[in-house]
Amino acid sequence: MQYFMEPTGVAIIGVSQDFKTINGKILKYLLDHKYQGQIYPVNPKYKEIKGLICYSSVGAIPEQVDLALIAVAAARVPGILRDCGAKGIKRAVIFSSGFAETGAEGKAIQDDIIKIAQEFQMRLIGPNCLGILNVSSGLICSFSASMEIESIKAGPVALVSQSGAVGFMLFNLLQEAGVGVNFVITTGNEADVTAGEGLAYVVENPNSKVIVTYLEGLRDGETFKKTAEKAAEAGKPIIALKVGNSASGQKAAATHTAALTGSGAAYKSYFDKMGIIQAKDSDDVIDLAQAFAPGKLPQGDRVGIVTMSGGVGILLADRSEEWGLQVPELSEALQEEVRKVIPSFGCAQNPVDVTAQSLNQGEEFKKCLKILLASDELDMLIVAITMATGKIAEKIGRDIAEAALDTDKPLVVCWSVGQVAKPGFDVLKDAEVPLYHSPARAAKALGSLYQYASFKRRWKTPVAGEINSDRQDKVQLALKESNKALSEHATKELLELYGLPVTKEYVATNAEVAVAFAEKMGYPVVMKIDSPDILHKTEAGGVAVNISSAQDVAAKFNEIMEKGLIYNPQAKINGILIQEQIPPGVEAIIGLQRDPVLGTQIMFGLGGIFVEVLKDVVLKPVPLSREDAHNMLREIKGAALLNGVRGRAAVDKEALVEILLGVSQLAVEAGGSLLSLDINPVTVLEQGRGAKILDGVLVGNTL
Amino acid sequence: MQYFMEPTGVAIIGVSQDFKTINGKILKYLLDHKYQGQIYPVNPKYKEIKGLICYSSVGAIPEQVDLALIAVAAARVPGILRDCGAKGIKRAVIFSSGFAETGAEGKAIQDDIIKIAQEFQMRLIGPNCLGILNVSSGLICSFSASMEIESIKAGPVALVSQSGAVGFMLFNLLQEAGVGVNFVITTGNEADVTAGEGLAYVVENPNSKVIVTYLEGLRDGETFKKTAEKAAEAGKPIIALKVGNSASGQKAAATHTAALTGSGAAYKSYFDKMGIIQAKDSDDVIDLAQAFAPGKLPQGDRVGIVTMSGGVGILLADRSEEWGLQVPELSEALQEEVRKVIPSFGCAQNPVDVTAQSLNQGEEFKKCLKILLASDELDMLIVAITMATGKIAEKIGRDIAEAALDTDKPLVVCWSVGQVAKPGFDVLKDAEVPLYHSPARAAKALGSLYQYASFKRRWKTPVAGEINSDRQDKVQLALKESNKALSEHATKELLELYGLPVTKEYVATNAEVAVAFAEKMGYPVVMKIDSPDILHKTEAGGVAVNISSAQDVAAKFNEIMEKGLIYNPQAKINGILIQEQIPPGVEAIIGLQRDPVLGTQIMFGLGGIFVEVLKDVVLKPVPLSREDAHNMLREIKGAALLNGVRGRAAVDKEALVEILLGVSQLAVEAGGSLLSLDINPVTVLEQGRGAKILDGVLVGNTL
Repeated sequence: MQYFMEPTGVAIIGVSQDFKTINGKILKYLLDHKYQGQIYPVNPKYKEIKGLICYSSVGAIPEQVDLALIAVAAARVPGILRDCGAKGIKRAVIFSSGFAETGAEGKAIQDDIIKIAQEFQMRLIGPNCLGILNVSSGLICSFSASMEIESIKAGPVALVSQSGAVGFMLFNLLQEAGVGVNFVITTGNEADVTAGEGLAYVVENPNSKVIVTYLEGLRDGETFKKTAEKAAEAGKPIIALKVGNSASGQKAAATHTAALTGSGAAYKSYFDKMGIIQAKDSDDVIDLAQAFAPGKLPQGDRVGIVTMSGGVGILLADRSEEWGLQVPELSEALQEEVRKVIPSFGCAQNPVDVTAQSLNQGEEFKKCLKILLASDELDMLIVAITMATGKIAEKIGRDIAEAALDTDKPLVVCWSVGQVAKPGFDVLKDAEVPLYHSPARAAKALGSLYQYASFKRRWKTPVAGEINSDRQDKVQLALKESNKALSEHATKELLELYGLPVTKEYVATNAEVAVAFAEKMGYPVVMKIDSPDILHKTEAGGVAVNISSAQDVAAKFNEIMEKGLIYNPQAKINGILIQEQIPPGVEAIIGLQRDPVLGTQIMFGLGGIFVEVLKDVVLKPVPLSREDAHNMLREIKGAALLNGVRGRAAVDKEALVEILLGVSQLAVEAGGSLLSLDINPVTVLEQGRGAKILDGVLVGNTL
Repeated sequence: MQYFMEPTGVAIIGVSQDFKTINGKILKYLLDHKYQGQIYPVNPKYKEIKGLICYSSVGAIPEQVDLALIAVAAARVPGILRDCGAKGIKRAVIFSSGFAETGAEGKAIQDDIIKIAQEFQMRLIGPNCLGILNVSSGLICSFSASMEIESIKAGPVALVSQSGAVGFMLFNLLQEAGVGVNFVITTGNEADVTAGEGLAYVVENPNSKVIVTYLEGLRDGETFKKTAEKAAEAGKPIIALKVGNSASGQKAAATHTAALTGSGAAYKSYFDKMGIIQAKDSDDVIDLAQAFAPGKLPQGDRVGIVTMSGGVGILLADRSEEWGLQVPELSEALQEEVRKVIPSFGCAQNPVDVTAQSLNQGEEFKKCLKILLASDELDMLIVAITMATGKIAEKIGRDIAEAALDTDKPLVVCWSVGQVAKPGFDVLKDAEVPLYHSPARAAKALGSLYQYASFKRRWKTPVAGEINSDRQDKVQLALKESNKALSEHATKELLELYGLPVTKEYVATNAEVAVAFAEKMGYPVVMKIDSPDILHKTEAGGVAVNISSAQDVAAKFNEIMEKGLIYNPQAKINGILIQEQIPPGVEAIIGLQRDPVLGTQIMFGLGGIFVEVLKDVVLKPVPLSREDAHNMLREIKGAALLNGVRGRAAVDKEALVEILLGVSQLAVEAGGSLLSLDINPVTVLEQGRGAKILDGVLVGNTL
C-alpha cells in the first residue's frame, strides 16, 4: 500500500486539459492541492498542460513512475495496463466503471486486467472506485466534486470505503464538520486491493488516530481480522458503517459490487468483540469521528451537564442514561463552589443550570466549566447552549474552547439552534471541540467514548489454548472421513477428547448386548438410534426414555431398529445407544457456526421456549476467553434462570463455562474442516453438580 | 385561549425604549413582525416610544385591552396584576422568573398571583415562560433571540412547550429547516393555563395541521386526553418530545418546573394508543415536522429508492426495513420503463441507480421520478443525492421539487453532503420538500409517515361498554368501605359481577364447615386463608393445595388459622377459602394500575419466568376495544406460547380476551375509586376449555 499512498510520482493516463472532464479534474485537483511529488500527464494530443510536460505514452516518461491513474473507458483499460506494466509501473488506480458491477461482459474485462496485473506483478485499486487521498502530501487522486473545497483540512481521521460515492460523501461531511482527514482509500470492485488492505495501511500509519470505514462485504477476512486486532492493541477506534443487513439491502449489495455480504449477526458479534463501533448512519460516522478526534477518553461513566435551560438538561440526562452513563448529583462542596459563579436563580445540581444570563458576559461561565472539569466527581462534560447569536455566541464559543483546551476529559457541546449562532459554531470547529446540534447526538458521542474506553480497559489479545496436534489430527480426520454430519456417538467421542462431560453410553448392535450394557449402566436408561443418516431421531421413532428393565430394553431395541429402517431404508445404522438418564436441570444449547469471512462463532442459549419462542441466544467469535464465556452466560435475556428463580437453586455455571471453552478449543483445532456443531441439549445441574451433554452433532466442511 | 392568541390589543407593562432589554425586545419584535392589533406601551417614564403613545399606567389606557404582557421582577408582578384586573384585562402572559421554580419564597408569590387571577377572573400564561406567537397576525409576544430572523415563515405547524427555551429552540430549528409555524405557546410554570389547554387550542384551530409539543409532565390529564382524541379524529399528527423518563431526568424535572412527571410506561402506552408520535430528540421533532408538513401520507408500506450511489441505496434499504417498510423489486414492465430514462450502466431495480451522470442534464432524471411516482407498485419515494454542487445542485433540486409538486405520494430527499450543495437545498426548502442529510433520518421520516397512516386507518374512538349503575355502585362501595386491599374472596365477588371466570370457592369459618364445603366441591381442593390483612398468603403459611380427604381438610383448617394468627396477630381473618383445584395450563397475569395523570392502564403478561425474569408485559389504556385485547396477546414477546409450542395445544385466547374486556369495564365503572388490581395467576386451558382466575386482589384509592 505504501507505493499507492506515498508514491514519488504519478502518471495520469489519458489526461485532459479540459478541467471540467473527469481526466482533467484529476490533474486539476493534484495541482490545486499542491501535490509534492512528480506529475506525468500522458496524452499524445498535448505537448504540455499547465507548464507540465505531457507525454505521448507512459513509455515516453524518462523517469521511473510509482503510480498510474487510469480513468478511461473500460475497454481501453487492459491495453493501458499492459503499457504501464511494460514501463515497470507497479501500482495503478483504476477509476473507470463498466467492469464486474455491470454484468458478464464487464466481468470478462475485469478478469482480464487481473491477469495482466499478475503478469507484471502490478497491484490495482479499483476499478469502479473514486480514488485515494494522502492529504499531507497533497496526493489528491480523485475526481470527486468533494475536492472543490479551497483547502483540505488534514487531521487524525483515515477513511477506507468500498463505495467511492459513500467514501467521498463521508469525507465531505467530515470536512464540513471541521474534522481533519489524512487518508482516503476507496476500493470499488476490489479486483485486487481490498478494503482490508487499505485498513491495514491506515491502522499502521502513525498519523491515523481514528479510522472510519464503509463496508458492504469483506473478501479477505484474515487481513481484516489481523488489522482489527492491531487497531485494538493500538487503541485506535474503528467506526464502521457496515451495510447489507436487511433483505433488500443484501439484494442491493449483490447488484452493486460483486461482494460477499456476511451475515449481520456474525459481523455484530465480531465487531463487538474487537471494539469496532457500529455506525448505522452517516450522521453516526461524523458524530463519532468528531468525538474521537481529540483523543480524550473518559475514566468512568459520570457525566456532568451544563445547561442554560432546564428542559434541555432533562433531555440530555434522559439520553445519557440510555447509553449507560450516570448523571450524578454533585457533592455539597462542589455545589457550593459552583454557586459562586452562577446566578442565584441558577441550579448547582447536575444538570447545572447556569442560566442564559451568566453566559453573556464576564468570566463566570468559563470558571464554572473549569470547576466542573477539575472535579473528581465527573469524568466528562456536556455543555448545552440554546439560543445565542452574533457576538455573544462567539464569546460562548471561546469560553468553551478555552475550557476544553485545558482538560484531559472529554467535553462535547450540544448547541441546538440554527445559523444565528454560526459565530459560536465556527470558534468551536476551529478549536476542534466536538459540536452537536441535538441532545441525542451529544449523548451518543459521550456514550460511544465511554463504551470504547471500557473496551480499551478490558481488551486482551485473544489467545487460543495450545494446540494438541494428536487430537487435532483425529478431529480433522473424523470430519473429513465422514464428509457430512457425524452420528451422535461419533460426535460425543470427539467432544470427549476436549474433556467435555458427555453422557455415559455404549453402542449396542443387538438386543442381548443392549441388555448387558443397560444392566452395567443401571436403570433407568435412554435408548437412541445411532446413525449419521438419521439426524432427526425423535421423528424416526428412534428415542426411548425411562427404560427400566432388561425386558423393556430388548423390546425397545427391536422396535427402534425396525422404525429406523422404515424411516430411512438406506440408513447406515451403527446400532442403538444405551445411555445414562440424567435428572432434569436447566437445558441449554451450545453451537458453532462457521462464517465464510469472519471465521467460526460460538452460540449459547437456554433450551426450550427460550430458544424456540424468544430466540434468546448470544454469539461470540472463537477463541473464547474465560471472561467471554462468563459474559455469554450473563448476556442472554434469561440469564436470571441460571442464578435460580422461583425457589430453584442456581445452576453450575462453571461447568457451562468449561464446556464453552472446550468447544472453542475444538473449533480452533478443527479449523476450516468444521462447518457446524450443535450441542442440544446440555443439561445443567445444581451448582457443584456439573452439566451433561445429552446430544450433539458435528458437521464437516465439505466445500 | 382565543383571547390569548387572537387579542385585539396588547399592553406591555414596564416597556423599555432600550430595545436591548427584555422589556424593549417585546415591543421591538411586535413592531418588527407587524402586529396587526393595537399596542399599548405602559411606563410612566416615557410619553411615547416609536410613535406609539406610552401610558403611565394600565388604568390610563382609554380602550379595552385583551392581553397584558408582563416581564418585570417577580416581586412587582402581584401589584401589576391587580392593576390589570382593575382595568378589566382578562388575560396576562407573565414572562418573569423567580416563582415556584426557585423555592418556597417564589412559590408564595406564585400562589399570590393565582389568587389575584381568580379574584379578577383573569387567566394567566406562565410565569417563567417565553411567551406566545400567532404568526399570521404578527402577535409575537416573546423576547427570545429566535425572533431576530428577518421574517417568520408561517405554515401548518403549531408548537406547545412547557419549557420556553426548548420551545423557541425548536421554533428556531423548524424555521431553519424551512418549516412554517403558525402558533407557539410556552406555558412555563403553569400557574394557570396548562400545556393541555394550549394543545386544545391549536388542535381545534383549522390552520394547524401538525402539532409539536415538549412535555415534562401533565397537570390536567383530562384536557390532554380529550385533545388527543380530537387530534386523532381530525387526523392531525402530534409529535411529542416527552422528557423525564430517566432517573436523573426525573430529578431534573422536579427541580425545573414544579411538574408531575408521570411514569414513562404509562405515557408510552397512552401515546401509542392515540397515535401520538414519540420523539426522542430535537432532531426527531424537526425531521418529522418536515415530513408531516406537506400533508401527504402513504397508502401502503412500499418505498422506492432512487439513488446515484449503490452504497447509499443499500444504506437506505437497511434503514427503511428497520421501520417496517418494504423495498420491493420492481416489475419487469416498470423496470423497462425506467431503463429508457437512465444510462445503460444504471440499475432499474429498486434501489434504482440513476447514476451521477443522468442528474446533470436533460429531462431524464425528472422523468424517472415521475415514472416511479406514477406507478402503483410504490407508495412513497426517497430520492438520494450525494455529491453535487452549484448549478447542478440547483437543477437537481428543481427536478425533484417539480416531481414532488405533481404527486400525492410522500417524497423525501436524502442529500448527504455539506454546504457545497446549498443551491439545491434552498430550492427544496422553498418548495417544502422534506430534506434530510443522512439516510437514517430520511428513512425515519417515511417510517413515521407510514406508521401514522396505519394508525389513522385503524383509529376508532375508544368506547367503553355501557355502564351498569347497580354494579358500579356495588364496586365503588366495596372499594370505599374496604379503604385498602380487598381479600381474595371479596375481590373475586366483584370480578364475578363482570362475568369473569373465578374459581368456585366458599369461605369456611370452622373446620366442620370446611369439610362440608370440600365434600360438596369434590376433591382435590385448594385451601387458602382469606383476609384483607394477609396479602402474602404463601408467606403466611396460608395456602395448601392437593387436599384430598375430609381428614386433611380439617387438619389443614386449624393449621392455616394458627399460622395466620402467628403471622399477623391483628389480622381480621374472614375464614379459609375452600377452592376448586384447576388443572395446569398456561399461567398469565392481568393487572390494572391507575396513573394519576393519564388514568387507568391495563397490563397483561404470561406468568412465571416471563414476568419475573423477562418483564414481558404489555400495557394499554382503559377502555380496551376487542382489537386492543387481541393485540395485547400478540404483543408480548412470549406470544407464541399461547399458540402452542413444543407439542402443546394452543390455549383459549378468546377466554383471555373476555377477561381483559371485563377487567377494562370494571376499571371504567370503578373510576377514581380504584387504585390497582392484580389477577395472578389466571390459568388458561386449551382452546375451548376457557380460563380460570385463581387469585386476585383489588385495592381501593384512599387518596
